[in-house]
Amino acid sequence: MEKYCFGIDVGGTTVKIGLFETDGSILEKWEIPTVTDDFGKNILNDICDTLDAKLIEKNIGLDEIEGLGIGLPGPVLDDGTVLQCVNLGWGTFNVSEKLSEMFHGIKVKAGNDANVAALGEAWKGGGKEYDDIVMITLGTGVGGGVVINGKILTGYNGGAGEIGHMHVEDEEKEQCNCGRRGCLEQYASATGIVRLAKRYMASTDVPTKMREIGDAITAKDVFDLAKEGDTGAIQVVNKMGNYLGKSMSSVAAVINPQAFIIGGGVSKAGQYLIDAIKDVYRETCFSACGDAAVHLAELGNDAGIYGAAALVVK
Amino acid sequence: MEKYCFGIDVGGTTVKIGLFETDGSILEKWEIPTVTDDFGKNILNDICDTLDAKLIEKNIGLDEIEGLGIGLPGPVLDDGTVLQCVNLGWGTFNVSEKLSEMFHGIKVKAGNDANVAALGEAWKGGGKEYDDIVMITLGTGVGGGVVINGKILTGYNGGAGEIGHMHVEDEEKEQCNCGRRGCLEQYASATGIVRLAKRYMASTDVPTKMREIGDAITAKDVFDLAKEGDTGAIQVVNKMGNYLGKSMSSVAAVINPQAFIIGGGVSKAGQYLIDAIKDVYRETCFSACGDAAVHLAELGNDAGIYGAAALVVK
Repeated sequence: MEKYCFGIDVGGTTVKIGLFETDGSILEKWEIPTVTDDFGKNILNDICDTLDAKLIEKNIGLDEIEGLGIGLPGPVLDDGTVLQCVNLGWGTFNVSEKLSEMFHGIKVKAGNDANVAALGEAWKGGGKEYDDIVMITLGTGVGGGVVINGKILTGYNGGAGEIGHMHVEDEEKEQCNCGRRGCLEQYASATGIVRLAKRYMASTDVPTKMREIGDAITAKDVFDLAKEGDTGAIQVVNKMGNYLGKSMSSVAAVINPQAFIIGGGVSKAGQYLIDAIKDVYRETCFSACGDAAVHLAELGNDAGIYGAAALVVK
Repeated sequence: MEKYCFGIDVGGTTVKIGLFETDGSILEKWEIPTVTDDFGKNILNDICDTLDAKLIEKNIGLDEIEGLGIGLPGPVLDDGTVLQCVNLGWGTFNVSEKLSEMFHGIKVKAGNDANVAALGEAWKGGGKEYDDIVMITLGTGVGGGVVINGKILTGYNGGAGEIGHMHVEDEEKEQCNCGRRGCLEQYASATGIVRLAKRYMASTDVPTKMREIGDAITAKDVFDLAKEGDTGAIQVVNKMGNYLGKSMSSVAAVINPQAFIIGGGVSKAGQYLIDAIKDVYRETCFSACGDAAVHLAELGNDAGIYGAAALVVK
């Protein structure tokens, strides 16, 4: 194995890039803007330019580069074909082949960004003690990734790990972003927690400090108030934890992972969030799956570049 | 690869055995009783004796045998360790190593019976067109198995594929065999369907032919009456299909399989059952997973011996 590799995480606004040693030590990380004009036709060019510049700056030869991994915001098949990246303006093509052609024929591996972040956490983050993990990212939406024996489980259409779209509520009237009703994302994302909080306030006259914040309430506010003992906020957190813990027990009945890693902005609520999930999980999961660990993610926004690097070296 | 292999499916009452060519053609199948006396200490001996006798009868040399696979009624780790087989009286030991020692040092692979049956269906049954399948066996209980890239997904504690113990109902008061409340098995197994039928009859005065059968009603009766247009029986089937279809959409959000294969006694209801599941699945699943095929199993009680043979030749 060569000494270096690149890990690239393409988002709708910025492209994050890391230069790694292949043992996983990060040497440098930087960002470039994602230029989505003209159906994102310059994104790969811009990446090649910045990588070339970095190699010159660091005086690293191409023959010292093992390869580069790239995470993308859309479904990606095992062979590197993206089916569609709406946020980038891309249609269907083989990113791995294309980027390899453009960047000196070097080895390129591509994956979905949520899956790649899971791989990053499995490699060097909250899941580094384990071979089989499920990562759940609680952000604006709920993303997920499944890593088995150190490899991403992609699924037939790149749809594996879409934990946020598990159906958890029959009575939901509002639509999820995916078009269905009653998806986990509608309750366990930052947006979902706010929605639960507003529903709670509309449903009762019980005093809660959430009312003082009113419409501007955030998921962080809800967790902060719950930690202070606010009864209403505690109920909202418990409801969210109930949906999430049960979904995790369903996940466990399918793949029986060693550990769940919880990341994303909402996970900043820390151990309090883990506790709200864990009990429900233990109460509903199949007994053989009961000892799965539940940990916080550790790499934050760098999970994507770590995971992308892991694509080529693992 | 040698010409022959054995596939062995150990149940609580009988041991089913198949002699196969390694391309999957079955040459002969037979059964011996499972003697569970003295903590099942003679089971492996009895298997060795009948295999030795078969080799002599068929004039097949040991050097023509690729190996033998064995399915067992309990959790089995990837290295062949059974954690417990209550029905056989067994505790924890490495079955693959033990049976190999006892049977001329030949290659032995072991797996959980439900997982092994899934592998059998994936190899030569309803899933033979696909690489990634989930099998759901609707019998007295609800079993399951996950096959990805032609290999069983075992899970960390051998608990992968336990689809029957996905939590699907918060309001359930009765306990599942696993000790939890609200598992899929409580509604989609033969026993579960009968329970749903009895609950339906107790909850309404609407006329239904199910009442004429009364307490002796079976899952088959329910499906037969539904096919004849009995409103009550149709409602029971729809309720069961609703639980099962939604569970399948949760499974799909985790692993995005190419196909679901439905087996077990209840699956004799045929296409009518598939239709009852499929619409619910399509309505609740994440869009990328919507084109998963849903097929009936094809190997019946032979799925276990086929899958056991597949353990050694795939």
